[in-house]
Amino acid sequence: MARASEFDLIGRYLADRGARRRDVVLGVGDDAAILAGDDRPLLMALDTLVEGVHFPADLPAGWVGHRALAVNLSDIAAMGGEPCWALLGLTLPEADEAWVRAFADGLDALARRHAVALVGGDVTRGPLSISVQVAGHANGPVLRRAGAAVGDRVWVSGRPGDAMGGLAVWQDPTQRDRRQWRGLQRAFIAPRPRVALGQALAGIASAAIDVSDGLVADAGHIARGSGVAIALQAAACRPSARLCHWLGDTAARQTLLAGGDDYELCFTAPAAADAAVLQAARASRTPVRCIGAVRAGAGVWLDGEALTADTAGYRHFSD
Amino acid sequence: MARASEFDLIGRYLADRGARRRDVVLGVGDDAAILAGDDRPLLMALDTLVEGVHFPADLPAGWVGHRALAVNLSDIAAMGGEPCWALLGLTLPEADEAWVRAFADGLDALARRHAVALVGGDVTRGPLSISVQVAGHANGPVLRRAGAAVGDRVWVSGRPGDAMGGLAVWQDPTQRDRRQWRGLQRAFIAPRPRVALGQALAGIASAAIDVSDGLVADAGHIARGSGVAIALQAAACRPSARLCHWLGDTAARQTLLAGGDDYELCFTAPAAADAAVLQAARASRTPVRCIGAVRAGAGVWLDGEALTADTAGYRHFSD
Repeated sequence: MARASEFDLIGRYLADRGARRRDVVLGVGDDAAILAGDDRPLLMALDTLVEGVHFPADLPAGWVGHRALAVNLSDIAAMGGEPCWALLGLTLPEADEAWVRAFADGLDALARRHAVALVGGDVTRGPLSISVQVAGHANGPVLRRAGAAVGDRVWVSGRPGDAMGGLAVWQDPTQRDRRQWRGLQRAFIAPRPRVALGQALAGIASAAIDVSDGLVADAGHIARGSGVAIALQAAACRPSARLCHWLGDTAARQTLLAGGDDYELCFTAPAAADAAVLQAARASRTPVRCIGAVRAGAGVWLDGEALTADTAGYRHFSD
Repeated sequence: MARASEFDLIGRYLADRGARRRDVVLGVGDDAAILAGDDRPLLMALDTLVEGVHFPADLPAGWVGHRALAVNLSDIAAMGGEPCWALLGLTLPEADEAWVRAFADGLDALARRHAVALVGGDVTRGPLSISVQVAGHANGPVLRRAGAAVGDRVWVSGRPGDAMGGLAVWQDPTQRDRRQWRGLQRAFIAPRPRVALGQALAGIASAAIDVSDGLVADAGHIARGSGVAIALQAAACRPSARLCHWLGDTAARQTLLAGGDDYELCFTAPAAADAAVLQAARASRTPVRCIGAVRAGAGVWLDGEALTADTAGYRHFSD
């Protein structure tokens, strides 16, 4: 479904490496690894952000720190887990004390909000990039990409597409400082990992993923992982008013489907669980909406039309 | 004691960040973090290697993969733990399939030798760097930098200094292919993390660290962490015959003290535990030697002379 980047493809050479261990419940290939802990399962995720690839070079250090942690918290959220501890590998071209302080402050604020401790750090010299690893517990059933069943509903949190719209605002010096785009920009600059929602959905959702590559691309990961088709309803896939205002309705709809970096949760749940899903959303103070259904077949569809690589693809902002 | 790099110094801004959690036994500041697991303690370490900073740009991909895992296994070894799982963040300038295959093969071979599974991977575009995180269990008492007591003996495994000597061979095109330097080069190219020794020393050693910054610099970390002085005996700090052959006796002795990237273990243990230390070394098939004693005071000393930043310093190969 998704137009995987060549870097995604090459990542396949890393699957099934190292020893076989009985305590590895799920290795490479989902949002996080699932490991058999002594009591509860452990969840672990690691993501690397590279300047100019995963964030603009002029993004303030505090928001880089926020983002580096947020994308990993989002991976744990997509598994329905409780993030606990983070380790950081920070590579910097020069020992810029002010930058590191601001970076650490941004990371610190988000970590505290989610009761996550930074337990290890390594600062080295080199081109700017940040690797963060987050580990945590699964206190209930773990959500995976596999598990969606025919007849399930498809849901998404928040407003996918806003992050890509916000990035475009950020990159336009004539618009960046305008108050009217503040909310849109914030969707890109300060993504909010849906940790509380993910935990509330454990035991309710049948499958979940976080929206990093774009809604259709990530729904495609659930479709492939679960061996089903995802049928989206165009009428339910409404971009936010602010995204329509910024891009116009047509481009906003396209961005909702193919944008990325939203770090919202896309998940499936049996129709009988509608009330439980809405209760989980209320309890976690996270807006969710039903955007389609799980069907027999393969791929991602919009009102009966198969979505192609162009509409569904991996769209990194620097591509 | 050690001449810390400005990057080490700036890392201090990352200490004590994020939430306070009761399950964090030891955070930033040792070889690995210690976390209260449901039953046994969990150990976690993350290190980043940057091309041209932590390894030469012409090092074959397989050895880069070996090294990226080895430095992290060494951190777990220094805590006396059992490494179990690794996550990888690989950043590459181009999607070079042959390079990634060879890299993965090198990492895979070392992972299998230590029964470690690669459970997560992320390949992104950017300047070549590798972040690996390793997590594992402590099955006995955890070794820390703190814990050395006055009267303890100071021990080191293997042949510190050989790695820096081997790097110099690697960097000399007229010598690189000579058979006589093969062992010396191998000390740099294929460091062997002392995982079995570390586990065997749990409950015996009073403090431990892996030798990455240089023997004196890392002994200095134990001295500071334990609030003691480390008194080395020059007669016991004998460089290997091959290092003396390559560098001459004087430079070899200096390299033994101030070189780095050895990934040997430097540890302390009560004098009454001599037999237990030697039994742990035999059981793990790792050569160890006693090189000094723990004294009241501070810093690292060689035959009564305080070692200065010049002799003790952080010596990265690219500095």
